[in-house]
Amino acid sequence: MNNYIKLKRVFVGRMVGSLTEAVSRDAEREKELSQREQEIKWRIEKKLKKVKRVILVMSGKGGVGKSAVTTSLATTLALKRPNRVGVLDSDFHGPVIPMMLGVRDMKYESKMREGSYPVEGPLGIKVASMGLILPDETPFTLRGVMKYEVLREILCSVIWGELDYLLVDLPPGTSDDALNVAFALPRIDGAILVTIPTEVSRVPVRKCAVFCKQYELKMLGIIENMSVLYCPHCGRVIEIFGKGGKAEKIAREEGVPLLGKVPFDPQVAACMDEGIPFILEHPDSRFAKEFQKIAGEITRSLG
Amino acid sequence: MNNYIKLKRVFVGRMVGSLTEAVSRDAEREKELSQREQEIKWRIEKKLKKVKRVILVMSGKGGVGKSAVTTSLATTLALKRPNRVGVLDSDFHGPVIPMMLGVRDMKYESKMREGSYPVEGPLGIKVASMGLILPDETPFTLRGVMKYEVLREILCSVIWGELDYLLVDLPPGTSDDALNVAFALPRIDGAILVTIPTEVSRVPVRKCAVFCKQYELKMLGIIENMSVLYCPHCGRVIEIFGKGGKAEKIAREEGVPLLGKVPFDPQVAACMDEGIPFILEHPDSRFAKEFQKIAGEITRSLG
Repeated sequence: MNNYIKLKRVFVGRMVGSLTEAVSRDAEREKELSQREQEIKWRIEKKLKKVKRVILVMSGKGGVGKSAVTTSLATTLALKRPNRVGVLDSDFHGPVIPMMLGVRDMKYESKMREGSYPVEGPLGIKVASMGLILPDETPFTLRGVMKYEVLREILCSVIWGELDYLLVDLPPGTSDDALNVAFALPRIDGAILVTIPTEVSRVPVRKCAVFCKQYELKMLGIIENMSVLYCPHCGRVIEIFGKGGKAEKIAREEGVPLLGKVPFDPQVAACMDEGIPFILEHPDSRFAKEFQKIAGEITRSLG
Repeated sequence: MNNYIKLKRVFVGRMVGSLTEAVSRDAEREKELSQREQEIKWRIEKKLKKVKRVILVMSGKGGVGKSAVTTSLATTLALKRPNRVGVLDSDFHGPVIPMMLGVRDMKYESKMREGSYPVEGPLGIKVASMGLILPDETPFTLRGVMKYEVLREILCSVIWGELDYLLVDLPPGTSDDALNVAFALPRIDGAILVTIPTEVSRVPVRKCAVFCKQYELKMLGIIENMSVLYCPHCGRVIEIFGKGGKAEKIAREEGVPLLGKVPFDPQVAACMDEGIPFILEHPDSRFAKEFQKIAGEITRSLG
């Protein structure tokens, strides 16, 4: 055998060797990845094991008061059974739940190995949010996939404990951020759609309904927020977002119940700015009563 | 030479051949890609060549009326010089501009090879939006990178023609969607921040300001929307979103002008639901006058 052939043999040997290695490396990596996926799923499931009901709070568009509805609903539910309600604020770009529940300056208490305890707001409402990790003024500019990973990391680590309800405040709309949350949760018992009575928000709500059907999420119903305003001076009704009746129409069209029509109360925003749940301060207001009705409907619907 | 060696020689030959091919294919692909990038950039620049000013309309969070402000500002600018204002609705998940400007049922007029003409609303305002392509009830569930590509495709194809102002209605917040738009535009002359007077929206506005600094966008100023409401029955002022003075504070903190404080008028939503710019119907309203002031400030600031 001449040197040329010898060299070639070595070359081929290396080539085949490195190819085989690459193939087995790939297979190993895939195995590792799928093992990791399994582990993450398992860890998330474990953390949510003692949570009886996971409810998504969605909105077709931003600014319809989704977070305000989430905190008000959590407060109403917790009034009946304190320490049994949790809120996961899954909105990376505008995490306002900690501010609304007055826990923005609290820190997670971490328990080595096992994870972190959520912070506790009024009535023992447990809160987890990006807003508790990031400094206020940092724009969260992570791209899609990374956000999904961070979200799952949070789901893996937060020790919710025994809860009757975990309300998940979704990012607004039907974007990939919203999709991510739906994919990351091992189970969802139902979704609530929040809207306001403008024609402009009718279309986004429609999209939400299509989204729910597409991903087989049970729609518990629609909440019309900022329905009407009662003038604090003369007491008369102001239809701030146009003529009423839109929520009824959408609910009929989509074949889901209209859970309630929440009036706009200027004092709600003022309370939230100070981190006090409005419902605790004004338990006899029209606002609080409407939420009692809504909470009742949801409880019944989930059995 | 035995058959074994012959076979190996063929094998090595193929291997080396396909490797060389792969390498040159990669290089070619890279060259192709960078050529494509260059071409896209060039095409976008060409389409925006006769646009004098490109202005971003941003908001820290959804639902502060960013799209309403965009259309009102466009109408105010177009009142002075019709046919010289364009609006690009870059919000994929809630494209409401076509509805607000009453062009939702119009179609792009395409001019083979060159692209498509935007649809024309009142006062010759040119509109391009995802809302004109997608059917109303389809949730837009494309992932990040794809959205970027679709956006650039729109920028490549819309024939804006000669414009004084192109207002770009950004997706809410400082998410990757917003980043994408900033990256896709060859030049941005300034950014306007829209906010409402709640403490909850103060933080997101802050993030927007950081975002603008990070990407060296000139902040033209802040517009406080839904500032106060005048009761249509008794005429008295209602501070619907908490105590005033927040926009002034933010403007001071960020060192940017407060362009104006737009009152909340229930008739605005009603008009928008019908696709009629409120300002055209009520040119003497407080709302319209505030926008005249704002447009003046912006024109002056851009020289």
